[in-house]
Amino acid sequence: MTKNVPDGLFITFEGIEGSGKTTQSNTLTSMLSEAGYKVRQAIEPGGTPTGELIRQWVKSDTNITPLSELFLFSAARAALVETVIVPAMAVGTIVVCDRYQYSTTAYQGHGRGLDMDTIACLNWTSTGGLLPQLVILLDMPPGHTSTRKASVELDRIERESESFHLRVREGYLEQARLDPERWLVIDATRSVNEIAHAVWTRVGALLPDG
Amino acid sequence: MTKNVPDGLFITFEGIEGSGKTTQSNTLTSMLSEAGYKVRQAIEPGGTPTGELIRQWVKSDTNITPLSELFLFSAARAALVETVIVPAMAVGTIVVCDRYQYSTTAYQGHGRGLDMDTIACLNWTSTGGLLPQLVILLDMPPGHTSTRKASVELDRIERESESFHLRVREGYLEQARLDPERWLVIDATRSVNEIAHAVWTRVGALLPDG
Repeated sequence: MTKNVPDGLFITFEGIEGSGKTTQSNTLTSMLSEAGYKVRQAIEPGGTPTGELIRQWVKSDTNITPLSELFLFSAARAALVETVIVPAMAVGTIVVCDRYQYSTTAYQGHGRGLDMDTIACLNWTSTGGLLPQLVILLDMPPGHTSTRKASVELDRIERESESFHLRVREGYLEQARLDPERWLVIDATRSVNEIAHAVWTRVGALLPDG
Repeated sequence: MTKNVPDGLFITFEGIEGSGKTTQSNTLTSMLSEAGYKVRQAIEPGGTPTGELIRQWVKSDTNITPLSELFLFSAARAALVETVIVPAMAVGTIVVCDRYQYSTTAYQGHGRGLDMDTIACLNWTSTGGLLPQLVILLDMPPGHTSTRKASVELDRIERESESFHLRVREGYLEQARLDPERWLVIDATRSVNEIAHAVWTRVGALLPDG
């Protein structure tokens, strides 16, 4: 029997490249599904025609200005929220999303140094104020990833300097410190199974009895 | 001898589809060039790799949400301002641009009904507050255009209802009323030569003696 979550449940994963977001997002989605819940997995930018175009664009090697990049991510998010996340939550589906506005604050704000008030304005506008009940930060130092790619395989953002990725990591940790009730910070250097267990324990507390 | 405009000069054309913006922008650019000025013609969205991608995208028939569309136009404008308009003005080049933030206010605000405070915030952010010295509105009723296209040739925005285009026109006129020093409103049903003459008279007053 399919279980609904009447008021909706929205969970996002955050973290630097290689921190294991995709693996953990897939695992959580499978576990929720096996437990009988309707789940919609999403990724940012992506998941809509506009979002997929932007995903390809921002990852390719072109001269996108930081401000233009900020607007592109916002365009992708606006489409995803309006056409995927909100409709899914409205019918009791759990949404598990790989990245959300916290990535914008970490990458475009802490990483690229864009004005934080501008980012806050665009984050609010692009989401209509919709926040997830839980943000799972898979925290690790840059360069630690076990799935390190050869430099020729790196996309435009992955090729940024180590100091950029350090600022992004710090940007995530600062956001977590400012909103500890919403954030779960997990040491992403732990094993995949240990992390999945920690995620499931926290998510379980958000699920209705059912 | 090439004449510089030391403090820069930035002129934009606005108006509904078919009002003759491209023709008049081309004519003004030629006349300024013949008078010895350095001129950079631009178009929005477009004129940069990001802008050209967005131009194709917003004109194609896809389900772009109004909010996502607003962010896409802002992304294109941010790229154009930063990489084309500001550098050109810095070296004494006159910039003549087909559409600017006033189109966003008219189309996404008055036309689609998006929140005007949000639009004002995004317009300011995408331009860094850079305003043209002159906005030339080629004003005409929707449907009057002499270059009316067959319906199969219309793009996504051109296919909008007549009431949409009426709201856009009114949106332009309201902006002109609120900032009359900056705006020149021209009856776009007049002949191409009459309009070009009216434009040239006004632009001439902005040119330094050269």
